Amino acid sequence: MSRTGRRPGTSTTREEILAAAAEAFSVAGYEATSMRQVAAAAGVDPALVRRFFGGKEQLFSAVVTDVFRPEQALPMLLDGPRAGLGERLAAYVLGLLGEVERPGPLLGLMRSAATSAHAAALIRTFLADEMLGKLTRQLGTDHPELRAALAAAQLVGLAITRYAVRVDALVTADPAELTAWAAPALQRYLTGPAPR
Amino acid sequence: MSRTGRRPGTSTTREEILAAAAEAFSVAGYEATSMRQVAAAAGVDPALVRRFFGGKEQLFSAVVTDVFRPEQALPMLLDGPRAGLGERLAAYVLGLLGEVERPGPLLGLMRSAATSAHAAALIRTFLADEMLGKLTRQLGTDHPELRAALAAAQLVGLAITRYAVRVDALVTADPAELTAWAAPALQRYLTGPAPR
Repeated sequence: MSRTGRRPGTSTTREEILAAAAEAFSVAGYEATSMRQVAAAAGVDPALVRRFFGGKEQLFSAVVTDVFRPEQALPMLLDGPRAGLGERLAAYVLGLLGEVERPGPLLGLMRSAATSAHAAALIRTFLADEMLGKLTRQLGTDHPELRAALAAAQLVGLAITRYAVRVDALVTADPAELTAWAAPALQRYLTGPAPR
Repeated sequence: MSRTGRRPGTSTTREEILAAAAEAFSVAGYEATSMRQVAAAAGVDPALVRRFFGGKEQLFSAVVTDVFRPEQALPMLLDGPRAGLGERLAAYVLGLLGEVERPGPLLGLMRSAATSAHAAALIRTFLADEMLGKLTRQLGTDHPELRAALAAAQLVGLAITRYAVRVDALVTADPAELTAWAAPALQRYLTGPAPR
């Protein structure tokens, strides 16, 4: 997957707009990105962007959905033994984050969240309603919101320290090694016994 | 402890400068803060700030040291059963972070790191040489740098999601509850078996 989230082969106009939007939000941040700029970058009329997505908020949410692809990711995460859930989640997110020198589209979303409370709120709602929150509710464990939030905290921390702060030991570790280290923590947050 | 890291009772000029610097770095960020501003905020001559601390880099490092207090924290963390290390570390860092509505001085340092690569590098070096890196080396386990980095990643993630992104379930959880949830993950990173 290229860093703008574009799939190989022919791409539709909708996908081209999403790719241009992902790039714009990643580089300029949520607040500084306009529908007009995205349209120009995708080589289409601003009216077409509005017709496809509505406003900037919906366009950003569409980029978030396009990065996480919950309709494919959730069945993949829930499929297979429950004891492997932490490992599947770690591998999925580290895959979205990509190589340190060539990060994937997820890092751009995190940058947008870091610089805009509005973008942060949109991502937070998406994670709670469409991704991790939905995952923990489908697992049927106690404390679904807290478990989803703790797993998110673990993954956000890995992303920040590896890709933004670039802590040496995390940069040089390969994704498989990091997955193996982080999987038990995620597994415990998602399915382990609640403390006390 | 107040949010500027000031201790109750009489404070020395050095402590007043450190408190003013912590506040300035937290509010304006590392790059935008000048020695002159810190001196003005502390009500002293800029030459005195230079005499105490040297340049801005050393002043920032002094604030970092003043927040973490490694000479007290490390013995506290290493004291007691090794199986309680994760819990002691979680409680120590959540204590430094403080209440969500009244965060402690650590959050300001994280903000500085988020907006300045230079501040991030200073904190990274401090954590590796004086805090978590020293802790894992004293534990004598394998992979000391990677273990320290994974523990840092877990703690950074909790801090970001609770204090900056303000994920509901983490904001409403109290520090003791969060400590109990995060302790096993930290314990495993610091002292658990390396994967494979």
